[in-house]
Amino acid sequence: MQQYFVNGKAQDFVTIEDKETIKHMFNVMRLSEDDQVVLVFDDGIKRLAKVRNKEIYQFEVIKTLEDNVEMPVQVTIASGFSKGDKLDLVTQKATELGATAIWAFPADWSVVKWDSKKLAKKEDKLRKIALGAAQQSKRNKVPEVCLFAKKDSFFQAIEAFDWVFVAYEESAKEGELSALAKNLQTIKKGEKILFIFGPEGGISPDEIAHFESKGAVKVGLGPRIMRTETAPLYALSSLSYVLEMQNDN
Amino acid sequence: MQQYFVNGKAQDFVTIEDKETIKHMFNVMRLSEDDQVVLVFDDGIKRLAKVRNKEIYQFEVIKTLEDNVEMPVQVTIASGFSKGDKLDLVTQKATELGATAIWAFPADWSVVKWDSKKLAKKEDKLRKIALGAAQQSKRNKVPEVCLFAKKDSFFQAIEAFDWVFVAYEESAKEGELSALAKNLQTIKKGEKILFIFGPEGGISPDEIAHFESKGAVKVGLGPRIMRTETAPLYALSSLSYVLEMQNDN
Repeated sequence: MQQYFVNGKAQDFVTIEDKETIKHMFNVMRLSEDDQVVLVFDDGIKRLAKVRNKEIYQFEVIKTLEDNVEMPVQVTIASGFSKGDKLDLVTQKATELGATAIWAFPADWSVVKWDSKKLAKKEDKLRKIALGAAQQSKRNKVPEVCLFAKKDSFFQAIEAFDWVFVAYEESAKEGELSALAKNLQTIKKGEKILFIFGPEGGISPDEIAHFESKGAVKVGLGPRIMRTETAPLYALSSLSYVLEMQNDN
Repeated sequence: MQQYFVNGKAQDFVTIEDKETIKHMFNVMRLSEDDQVVLVFDDGIKRLAKVRNKEIYQFEVIKTLEDNVEMPVQVTIASGFSKGDKLDLVTQKATELGATAIWAFPADWSVVKWDSKKLAKKEDKLRKIALGAAQQSKRNKVPEVCLFAKKDSFFQAIEAFDWVFVAYEESAKEGELSALAKNLQTIKKGEKILFIFGPEGGISPDEIAHFESKGAVKVGLGPRIMRTETAPLYALSSLSYVLEMQNDN
């Protein structure tokens, strides 16, 4: 069944106001009276609702659904600004794979330089991608999207996490393959995890030093070299596997 | 350092014959005498080599490198034919993530119908993508690419595997999240694993029944619904994590 996110508090009767959502509901899906959809308000709870009045885009909530597909931890992905549409792919796939937030920052070795206008436009596009992917993958929450204009603001934001991991290619070369596995064993439900990934050129020694001074752990992600947009997908899949599949025994 | 795959047996002196490789080496990378690259022959062993004569594209092998980044098991990914360029993405990412072979087959619910001409063209494109990705991710082997024209030939090919897993959305809905984790615990080095994924529409009940009659295990891949091209990446990442990171302790 089609699922839509609706901004605001949960209500028994709700009138949809977002133009894109209205268009998808009534032009693309051609909903009419009594057709059912799943609505998700800000509380992240899924609710079965039916069209009450299609002229004014009004729905009536029928019942609350138990279904919760969010990860047992909160995972934020932070990528160095990368070329082309790589962040589009990261945003779509990271949303499907359960990320809580998708961040990007201007890394020392980022080739692209985005001004504030470009950043705002890019952020807007990524938010739409995250919303669409969250609806398709039946998430309870739409991941937050944030592109940091300055590295310093990103550095400050790091403080708020229980765990900070930096994907570091050299770790793989040095044979430190198990660092991530060792740490994931001790992660607890509800903890906030940040995973930092470099741009195409990698993470600079200065950045590594800064992250480590803030308690970050360098981790390898298997022995093969992955592109900058593939590494976050590996990390999220591994986290899901450990926390949602192995611990489900 | 740049890595190239060279068809044939390992030799001390080798003359490159593949036009694309020559172009990349001498036009794009502008190699000249004594410049070094890594060459990988059919044996999958990496060898350091230097340009001996750039006019005739001749290299001399200097020494053998120990570096092996192949998975400890052989993993084949088989996707139902899917729309657009989804198989391109699967091929690139599955190569980075360590797949031994990338297959696709005409599933009952595949929307696209490809004739033999289209199939040959598509296969050729995917082989190039696999080769490029294998070079970039420093693989020892280029994954095999095979698009089956008939479902029957794919069904026959299933027999050759030690393990067959079918990614099945309903397994996730039924709460069978741990089936994959339970099975992965007993997989041994060198075993051949096949992972089957449906097209956009999913896998038909007939197909599921057939796969199960051949010993396939239905597995969920976490609680969220993933697009057809995302599921293989989750499976490969999880396999790598279990076999290369957790077992590396």
